[in-house]
Amino acid sequence: MTASTDGNGGAAMPEIPAKQKATIYDQPGTVSTKVVELDVPEPGVGEVLINLTHSGVCHSDYGVMTNTWSSLPDPTPAGQVGGHEGVGKIVTLGPGTENSGLKIGDRVGIKWVSGICGNCEPCHAGADGICFNRKVSGYYTPGTFQQYTLGPANYVTPIPDGLASDEAAPMLCAGVTVYSALKRSNARPGQWVVISGAGGGLGHLAVQLASKGMGFRVIGIDHGCKEELVKASGAEHFVDITQFPRDDKGAAIAAHIKSLADGLGAHAVLVCTASNIAYAQAPLFLRFNGTLVCVGIPENAPQAIATAFPGRMISQQLTITGSAVGTRKEAIETLNFAARGIIKAHFRTEKMEALTGVFEEIGQGKLQGRVVLDLS
Amino acid sequence: MTASTDGNGGAAMPEIPAKQKATIYDQPGTVSTKVVELDVPEPGVGEVLINLTHSGVCHSDYGVMTNTWSSLPDPTPAGQVGGHEGVGKIVTLGPGTENSGLKIGDRVGIKWVSGICGNCEPCHAGADGICFNRKVSGYYTPGTFQQYTLGPANYVTPIPDGLASDEAAPMLCAGVTVYSALKRSNARPGQWVVISGAGGGLGHLAVQLASKGMGFRVIGIDHGCKEELVKASGAEHFVDITQFPRDDKGAAIAAHIKSLADGLGAHAVLVCTASNIAYAQAPLFLRFNGTLVCVGIPENAPQAIATAFPGRMISQQLTITGSAVGTRKEAIETLNFAARGIIKAHFRTEKMEALTGVFEEIGQGKLQGRVVLDLS
Amino acid sequence: MTASTDGNGGAAMPEIPAKQKATIYDQPGTVSTKVVELDVPEPGVGEVLINLTHSGVCHSDYGVMTNTWSSLPDPTPAGQVGGHEGVGKIVTLGPGTENSGLKIGDRVGIKWVSGICGNCEPCHAGADGICFNRKVSGYYTPGTFQQYTLGPANYVTPIPDGLASDEAAPMLCAGVTVYSALKRSNARPGQWVVISGAGGGLGHLAVQLASKGMGFRVIGIDHGCKEELVKASGAEHFVDITQFPRDDKGAAIAAHIKSLADGLGAHAVLVCTASNIAYAQAPLFLRFNGTLVCVGIPENAPQAIATAFPGRMISQQLTITGSAVGTRKEAIETLNFAARGIIKAHFRTEKMEALTGVFEEIGQGKLQGRVVLDLS
Amino acid sequence: MTASTDGNGGAAMPEIPAKQKATIYDQPGTVSTKVVELDVPEPGVGEVLINLTHSGVCHSDYGVMTNTWSSLPDPTPAGQVGGHEGVGKIVTLGPGTENSGLKIGDRVGIKWVSGICGNCEPCHAGADGICFNRKVSGYYTPGTFQQYTLGPANYVTPIPDGLASDEAAPMLCAGVTVYSALKRSNARPGQWVVISGAGGGLGHLAVQLASKGMGFRVIGIDHGCKEELVKASGAEHFVDITQFPRDDKGAAIAAHIKSLADGLGAHAVLVCTASNIAYAQAPLFLRFNGTLVCVGIPENAPQAIATAFPGRMISQQLTITGSAVGTRKEAIETLNFAARGIIKAHFRTEKMEALTGVFEEIGQGKLQGRVVLDLS
Repeated sequence: MTASTDGNGGAAMPEIPAKQKATIYDQPGTVSTKVVELDVPEPGVGEVLINLTHSGVCHSDYGVMTNTWSSLPDPTPAGQVGGHEGVGKIVTLGPGTENSGLKIGDRVGIKWVSGICGNCEPCHAGADGICFNRKVSGYYTPGTFQQYTLGPANYVTPIPDGLASDEAAPMLCAGVTVYSALKRSNARPGQWVVISGAGGGLGHLAVQLASKGMGFRVIGIDHGCKEELVKASGAEHFVDITQFPRDDKGAAIAAHIKSLADGLGAHAVLVCTASNIAYAQAPLFLRFNGTLVCVGIPENAPQAIATAFPGRMISQQLTITGSAVGTRKEAIETLNFAARGIIKAHFRTEKMEALTGVFEEIGQGKLQGRVVLDLS
Repeated sequence: MTASTDGNGGAAMPEIPAKQKATIYDQPGTVSTKVVELDVPEPGVGEVLINLTHSGVCHSDYGVMTNTWSSLPDPTPAGQVGGHEGVGKIVTLGPGTENSGLKIGDRVGIKWVSGICGNCEPCHAGADGICFNRKVSGYYTPGTFQQYTLGPANYVTPIPDGLASDEAAPMLCAGVTVYSALKRSNARPGQWVVISGAGGGLGHLAVQLASKGMGFRVIGIDHGCKEELVKASGAEHFVDITQFPRDDKGAAIAAHIKSLADGLGAHAVLVCTASNIAYAQAPLFLRFNGTLVCVGIPENAPQAIATAFPGRMISQQLTITGSAVGTRKEAIETLNFAARGIIKAHFRTEKMEALTGVFEEIGQGKLQGRVVLDLS
Repeated sequence: MTASTDGNGGAAMPEIPAKQKATIYDQPGTVSTKVVELDVPEPGVGEVLINLTHSGVCHSDYGVMTNTWSSLPDPTPAGQVGGHEGVGKIVTLGPGTENSGLKIGDRVGIKWVSGICGNCEPCHAGADGICFNRKVSGYYTPGTFQQYTLGPANYVTPIPDGLASDEAAPMLCAGVTVYSALKRSNARPGQWVVISGAGGGLGHLAVQLASKGMGFRVIGIDHGCKEELVKASGAEHFVDITQFPRDDKGAAIAAHIKSLADGLGAHAVLVCTASNIAYAQAPLFLRFNGTLVCVGIPENAPQAIATAFPGRMISQQLTITGSAVGTRKEAIETLNFAARGIIKAHFRTEKMEALTGVFEEIGQGKLQGRVVLDLS
Repeated sequence: MTASTDGNGGAAMPEIPAKQKATIYDQPGTVSTKVVELDVPEPGVGEVLINLTHSGVCHSDYGVMTNTWSSLPDPTPAGQVGGHEGVGKIVTLGPGTENSGLKIGDRVGIKWVSGICGNCEPCHAGADGICFNRKVSGYYTPGTFQQYTLGPANYVTPIPDGLASDEAAPMLCAGVTVYSALKRSNARPGQWVVISGAGGGLGHLAVQLASKGMGFRVIGIDHGCKEELVKASGAEHFVDITQFPRDDKGAAIAAHIKSLADGLGAHAVLVCTASNIAYAQAPLFLRFNGTLVCVGIPENAPQAIATAFPGRMISQQLTITGSAVGTRKEAIETLNFAARGIIKAHFRTEKMEALTGVFEEIGQGKLQGRVVLDLS
């Protein structure tokens, strides 16, 4: 599980420049970004300096940039360097990192939760993804849309050999999020798992991991145009959401899904979309003792899950659970699935200057797959 | 774990009469009951005949009798013998019960789920309490408000030595229900568990089991008049629900409970009441990774849990789960806690003729503790 | 999960004859078997009569027949009808089976544990495979090497549609045994599992299930001649046991396996052989927190696992656990894996008369794959 | 879960001297210790300086000192400051500890594993007690038999309010070790747990935690003279090991224990002694599906557990697991049990100068309870 290094043993590492290129949010609240020249930072105690080569662009970057994501407490400051799916090589080891096991030249990643305290209750409980004192890359902490960034030696994520850096980037957020959620579903091999939003950025990775990596039988739900992607990702059945009435409180689609899953319903449902309707339908897809895992966060005013009545949950012994971004250990495990070819994001590569355009696509709901920025 | 027998080895068992006394629901939809003479039934294949001495009276009997419990599909038929917390001795072994391990004179109990198929998915999954083909004592199956009833040899519950029959009766429903719910909470010894409705029929047993039997630290919530009972049952803290505003969406009471539980909130909450407000407050009492267990079924039109937003559940990784009536194994374990004196229901004893009056008390919300009918 | 039926709805079921063909152990202690004519039995209370079409032959049948299996308390009686992997159709429903959900024409299986009491501690605990009062097919209970046998309506195993009866037979013992053991290993998808004896009757099924069904990464160990089978079954690595010294206490092979498994060792090892040396090596293959699952029972005088020192188990937090034959639920799940084509036994078909020859092959260690008897 | 502070907010912290008193192992291999004057160390990056007031003396200190503990790879160097159950107050925060949440004046503890890397597989897996790069207090890392020691800000253990420092000290090793082992036993409230060596330093704490903290029913085994202590600690039954033959392979004592535990045997056994005979008997005490937890490490040449035959483990589905020293989270939880008065070590207090005499008592097997050094 050692991080991969370049062939040069780090010896021939190029000089570290004083200045670097970075893409900043110059007008948070809009999608305007600007490529600027910034100082290359100096690693502090316990930190390493990373020369990033790639960074994924995630829907939550858009939320941070435009201040539209209600989960964040404060508006994003102007000049913020965004991004939280960064991959690159360590070029400097800061003071106090001698015993970290890291070396110059190691390939490592920076993810949404980019640093933790190690001393709070969630950290003790192995739930570092919800550390009370976590740092969030690209939100009040400089992110990965730049050529050099800092990371804590005890929390960067090693990138396994055999996984290209551009392929690794989207695993650090989308990949680990769905892996963690699938684990939290308590589904066992051979059981039925419904992925709601199966053709989306999270969903298609969930389908791959569930079916090819974890032995689950997958029913994917999405709009009809996603059928090919969902099936190619490994779903045994595809359910076109547009073929069912929206005004029957989910009765027809639930009946259909039960018919696909032994006549009883699924053992688990992952809601990967941000749709309140998807949440309202999901409990109806479950069989007794089934588990609904919440992954996508609906926008606008929060709503309860409309069909999650205590009486129904009791009589069928249903469970609803929320899954956050996952832990570093889960990130490492996700990268290993990716290195083995089991999970593979659909993405296209763009230059840093293209970020505003990418955000426009996201805002208009036009983005297919993911975008990875080439930072070189 | 063998069932207790009388000292006579069953040999001196009295003659089985042809007729017996039973209390029937003569006018379902009202609380009117009538003591009548019925034939003593003959055990069929796989059945045993039990001479009941005691039966608890449960709030769900009232719901069945008055047709007010929305969880039941059909109205109760006139002439129904109700009751589902019955204890007595086996007096006849029906055909095909030779290898059951049961003997004449064994003391056994009949519970809400009085018979199962053994062949459905929940039965295979060890979730016999929600068997798809279960028989429900006192609802379309003659219940325990009579002197003789039938039970399946493979599903009656052995009563341990050293536990009086009148004390055993309420364990068969209220006791096992809360035990199963506490297990489902995933709380571990030393962790904080909030019992909402801590002074009620379910709640006070939950407090006892949680604190004295399972090593949890308990915060009980109820009306102020229940404080003494809740603390005597083992709660470390009592929270008087009437001392907090009802119009702040639970903010004040949640803040208070967090302050009692390490400043972080409880690891688990059991909602033992039937109150939608209690359900709406419960998620706010939890710390990260906490679990809300639904036990009490709210009456009237079903409502979602008003604060169970996907966004909140995700960011704090909360879980909500429903717990039904428990399995036979859990009933046996509950009876063992009772035999050890760890759990003890508060009850008074009445004659069969008093049942209508007891239902009136239940209907008016005046009943303190439980009632056990003496069937002799 | 309903049992499959013939197209005739059972209506055209042929007459049930008075006599049938059966293969008996006429001289237990030898491999001599004889095909005889026996009465077709009558189903008792709770039983069904099954017209068997296929029965697998298992290594434990050989042990029962020859009285060489130390796990069995008593010598096998002369005239015993052996066999415990039988598949056929229900032709008669005995008294008291009306509510079992079974129908004439349903295809069902009989496995090693062919009947349970339902009332003992293991039954309550969902561990019916080790029911204290279990009946064992082919050992003091007439087995499946005959055309008609009885089974309890509440414990026969439904055979899913789409799985041929001859393919289903070996799943009822070998398949469920390894499935249960893999579950007991606590391995998670993406983790390394070593199968010791990977080319054997149990082992090759374990490799298939582990790799193709459950998402584990498999290292198979066996003699070199089994390499092709083991790799075709899904192992990522094959280790030829003959290429390592036998006198180094396993040091060399353990070092090799660690090198294959991230340099740390495997998360779990299943010992599917009956070799004490395999057991002695197995703890050395594990990484910290790893689990060794005992499946194969060594013959001759019992020996402790030679390297399972408390000190080693403590410092590495190792676990060793024994896995018996699995439950009926696990049998149903195994059959579903088989119906999906994920697990498939290698077998050849023989007539009942060939059984003695098959046992000779087993005794001489010459049998490749399994044999299924065609009972028609 | 915040660490307790003195009333002065740390402001009035006394001057830190340049020199301090320490007890060193001047002749490792013997029990000779010497009180010397050493420099007070300076905290490095990520470290805090702790003014220790108390340190427990543990049997493993004796093993380190005398080089008799086979689990340690290298002989102890002369001049080693031993000890690994230290409690004191933070007096200096080293560089890079600003965000640790620690403050001057916080009371914290140092345990056997006193520092971890945070980057190895066990650390990722939440098994920091077996971190591959752990530092061991009092063995190649200066320990707690001195007035000032260093600890990593991210790994010292906060001491809860209301727990005296001398009472806290033994919890940091003996307490957490048995708590971790009891968790690993998978026993549930109401189940039977046998503690072998129930009157020893580990054992009596295990009895307390199991019975009073975790809801288990405890059978304690030890020499007759320990009966009073074991029962006072909460055991329901005491078994005097000297009343049973040593040459019957454990048959008689196993039969007795089964009779105490429902006629079936215990759900779990913790072997807290270092006796090979205790290990050989332990599997015989278990019921089906039971778990033996290895805690005590036998001295001399390692031996396998003599009765742990694969055949027995399979037929009864037994589990044997090793439990190491526990994690920091478990230490925190153990201290909370202690602060609530549920677990309390028997100890006497001695001055630093008395250490040689204490080791002599340990070597002669005469020490009753524990010793805590007063370091002031």
